[in-house]
Amino acid sequence: MTRWKITLEYDGAGFVGWQRQENGLSVQQVLEEAVERFAQERVTLSGAGRTDSGVHALAQVAHFDLAKDTDASTVRDALNHHCKPHPVAVLEAEPEADDFHARFSATSRHYLYRILNRRAPPVLERGRVWHVPVALDAAAMHEAAGVLVGHHDFSSFRAAECQADSPVKTLDALAVSRAGDEVRLTASARSFLHNQVRILAGTLKLVGEGKWSDLDVRRALEARERAAAGPTAPAAGLYLTRVEY
Amino acid sequence: MTRWKITLEYDGAGFVGWQRQENGLSVQQVLEEAVERFAQERVTLSGAGRTDSGVHALAQVAHFDLAKDTDASTVRDALNHHCKPHPVAVLEAEPEADDFHARFSATSRHYLYRILNRRAPPVLERGRVWHVPVALDAAAMHEAAGVLVGHHDFSSFRAAECQADSPVKTLDALAVSRAGDEVRLTASARSFLHNQVRILAGTLKLVGEGKWSDLDVRRALEARERAAAGPTAPAAGLYLTRVEY
Repeated sequence: MTRWKITLEYDGAGFVGWQRQENGLSVQQVLEEAVERFAQERVTLSGAGRTDSGVHALAQVAHFDLAKDTDASTVRDALNHHCKPHPVAVLEAEPEADDFHARFSATSRHYLYRILNRRAPPVLERGRVWHVPVALDAAAMHEAAGVLVGHHDFSSFRAAECQADSPVKTLDALAVSRAGDEVRLTASARSFLHNQVRILAGTLKLVGEGKWSDLDVRRALEARERAAAGPTAPAAGLYLTRVEY
Repeated sequence: MTRWKITLEYDGAGFVGWQRQENGLSVQQVLEEAVERFAQERVTLSGAGRTDSGVHALAQVAHFDLAKDTDASTVRDALNHHCKPHPVAVLEAEPEADDFHARFSATSRHYLYRILNRRAPPVLERGRVWHVPVALDAAAMHEAAGVLVGHHDFSSFRAAECQADSPVKTLDALAVSRAGDEVRLTASARSFLHNQVRILAGTLKLVGEGKWSDLDVRRALEARERAAAGPTAPAAGLYLTRVEY
């Protein structure tokens, strides 16, 4: 029996999210069916981040156990073959120790939130960004982001349906920068609450357009209730970019 | 009467190309119809680069004349409104002098050719790159590209149906670099022959995989016949990135 770690890219648009659900196709299901077609073994995948419907991944990590005797490049190429035509790709497959767990062994998760900040609608990046046509001050957003970094009760930045035991998390990094028409928000933490990065993005957007100050962001954090923070930014702009172990 | 210069982004996948044709929808037609819906005027657009079917633009330039008294932001926003749902966006509109011509006044055109160089198929960049699963040596490609820069007879790098009067062109720049899994080829010239950048990309790919040397590229150039160069790379990887005046 070998424990396989796989690194995944996917376009979240057509999926109900990472996790299997009754109401539609998940990334997990596509991969579990690909494993079964490849190895004639039924497996359950564990993913590092349970991305929501519409959220993309540049490097999601998952693991599963396989009895079949095979090698890393065969696992990668065979799963890519059997994932077709779904927009899921296995970038890498690696054998891991038996106690490796994609979700519980992760020491940090990194997300990117992309905002296309121009009057014209997205074309080449349609479905891949949040389109904000009003001018955003990325430097002001970056400064306000500093208020949120650290060990806090993030109840204001947590979806009602969040299942985490505690709203207290340590946000290791939160940065905002501009690259041409694009405003990019990056966030790093050991773990995140449900919708946390999207609510952070929706809140910092209020700062970017001059409606909120740093002080408003601080008040939102201290309020410890969802209604105090900004709206949840659309799923299309969010990417799980890296998981560290 | 005002001459309007517009800068355009489009996803070339669903179009027969820039130019109006009998057999399908062109970018030119989408824009001419948008102008008519906006201003109730029938115009003919001239574009700086007549991109083929599947070729994308980050900043194509076109011009047209309008009797309607209006301003730049209205032209941009109204055309964006009327281009929907087609993947065409007007990034900018500017009034120009009467003798400005998007095609004939251009002093240089810049193209980007993107190769996704990894085993796993493209997912987030599907339809936006050429997928080459075998390892490419970008440094070797860059060195061979140097052979092609300058004033040459590019008959070997020209589609059979090319309508240019002369195959002699000056290639001002041709560079290849790697950014992670992506190999990027950039090309600049006053003007290009039909399919020139795609044949350059297809030829340099042979160098990247070690099948061709610099000398083979030189021989292909000197042969002055299409069969001597490499294959035409797919349209999906090509972007018109900038036009200078």
